[in-house]
Amino acid sequence: MATEAQLIAALTCVFESPSWFSNSEPLEVGIGDDGAVFRFGDRSMVAAADMSVEGVHFKREWSSLLEIGAKTTAANLADIYAMGGKPLYLLITAGLPTGFTEAEVAQLATGIASSAHLAGAKVIGGDLSKSPVLTLSITVLGEVTKPILRSGAKVGDRVIITGVPGWSASGLHLLKSDLSDSNFEGAVQALLAHRRPQVDAAAALALATAGASSMCDVSDGLLSEANHIANASKVGIEIELSAIAKTAEFIVLKKLAEDSRADIWEWLLAGGEDHHFLATLPDGIDLPAGAIEIGRVVAEVGVRVNLEGQSMSNYEAVGWRHF
Amino acid sequence: MATEAQLIAALTCVFESPSWFSNSEPLEVGIGDDGAVFRFGDRSMVAAADMSVEGVHFKREWSSLLEIGAKTTAANLADIYAMGGKPLYLLITAGLPTGFTEAEVAQLATGIASSAHLAGAKVIGGDLSKSPVLTLSITVLGEVTKPILRSGAKVGDRVIITGVPGWSASGLHLLKSDLSDSNFEGAVQALLAHRRPQVDAAAALALATAGASSMCDVSDGLLSEANHIANASKVGIEIELSAIAKTAEFIVLKKLAEDSRADIWEWLLAGGEDHHFLATLPDGIDLPAGAIEIGRVVAEVGVRVNLEGQSMSNYEAVGWRHF
Repeated sequence: MATEAQLIAALTCVFESPSWFSNSEPLEVGIGDDGAVFRFGDRSMVAAADMSVEGVHFKREWSSLLEIGAKTTAANLADIYAMGGKPLYLLITAGLPTGFTEAEVAQLATGIASSAHLAGAKVIGGDLSKSPVLTLSITVLGEVTKPILRSGAKVGDRVIITGVPGWSASGLHLLKSDLSDSNFEGAVQALLAHRRPQVDAAAALALATAGASSMCDVSDGLLSEANHIANASKVGIEIELSAIAKTAEFIVLKKLAEDSRADIWEWLLAGGEDHHFLATLPDGIDLPAGAIEIGRVVAEVGVRVNLEGQSMSNYEAVGWRHF
Repeated sequence: MATEAQLIAALTCVFESPSWFSNSEPLEVGIGDDGAVFRFGDRSMVAAADMSVEGVHFKREWSSLLEIGAKTTAANLADIYAMGGKPLYLLITAGLPTGFTEAEVAQLATGIASSAHLAGAKVIGGDLSKSPVLTLSITVLGEVTKPILRSGAKVGDRVIITGVPGWSASGLHLLKSDLSDSNFEGAVQALLAHRRPQVDAAAALALATAGASSMCDVSDGLLSEANHIANASKVGIEIELSAIAKTAEFIVLKKLAEDSRADIWEWLLAGGEDHHFLATLPDGIDLPAGAIEIGRVVAEVGVRVNLEGQSMSNYEAVGWRHF
């Protein structure tokens, strides 16, 4: 079986083959980034779609329907912010298992609406179907003035991240290890990060406005997303973790990893579903509040991670697997 | 359990509740029509989304993956045409069962691309996920100058349809009755109509341009869609089937119903998944080529169907159930 990346490359071929007859102008950004961008009249629209499936992306015993709705929507909104865009509209299709009640639909919808409202976006359409398991597919449409792509990183740019990643993975670890009722310091924050992740929209908008040369949300894990930027930009990324390791947040997360017998670096480097933004920023531009400088863009391709000068090459750049 | 219509009404409440903070202008058309319409810069966009689930909307033993991709996409494009719009872009999420091969993904994608190309539209993004059964969710974005709503029918307008409905239902009947290899006249057309339905885009665009006062595609069955227009427009619709019964197509379909022991009127009035368009047209406007006048908009609410003056009230206005 091909990897998802190989499949998407094959699909891009099928979908981008030229047509003799097309209603539309050439795309500004096609398949392969966080969202696609096209010109519509005098403005540019950014669009992204994601599917979330029960048992693959979420478990109903670990999250309420309200949380599932809010979290899935937040993840989709983050794709628009990662492009430097502002979300406007959502279309949502839902596959509902047999016996799903009206009250359950309302909980799911309320979760979706809560994330949409936070972003100033509106649900404008969708569809309901039967399905063997709860399935949500969300399309977000937004406006963008200057799209920030994965491919724009330049040698010499600083690499920054808008917060400490790994919290969602730590919450998932507690749930999987039956430690969600523990009194560990940071456990409440970890569970919240997993069940009801916040999207740092203000930071993404600030980065886009300041002139970030590339951007991703770290939903697939820091290392994996750094590789996305490095590959798309045909550059290398050197990450030095000591700046993260000095933050108060990291210290709590590290203690939580020790208490719950987990590997903090696995969470931090490979943990997914945190909606911080990883960006590259030319010199001479101020960092937005809360952002942490974690490295430099270099010419030698690939992603290399160090902690106080020591290589962390044992942490592979795998994408996030939900369970 | 609530009906789909009741659920959608409840969801509309959740999603259209006012927000103190919104990025967007008020919608031109919200939830409840074939698509939503909003202003984006100097143009209006129409957007619609649908989910198709294996075993609910299609069966892999009855349709190839290419056909499933093409048919699901055609149904989504029809929603944009039904609004008087022109499709531009598609976003597609797919849930793939375990063991789904690369070649199978390519077949599905080729089907999707074939319908998209026919419409001059382009697939610009999406997502792949695992799923217990094959699941497709498609969002179509289009451009619209003057949206044609379900709510615009006026007393005195003519009711027209762009072709004889019931063919997709007849093909499904042959498949369900194990008669797909029969030599019945019309069987090939019936199976094609079910497996690879065509969207009569030119007719829809002609109706929109000519000045149709309301429009639906008949994907949910003629009676059900007539009720949608009657309810949304707060009018009645009187349908007289004799004009349809005189067409050469009807005569073939009737023979096929007799040969395969089915009820032609059940197919014609309640059969879904045909992408003809049902519209109301003010007097004084020429009918587009191929369109059949089948009735009048009247003041007395409800939908009444006659055949040469005889009431057909025994055919209930139920929506199409796929299997």
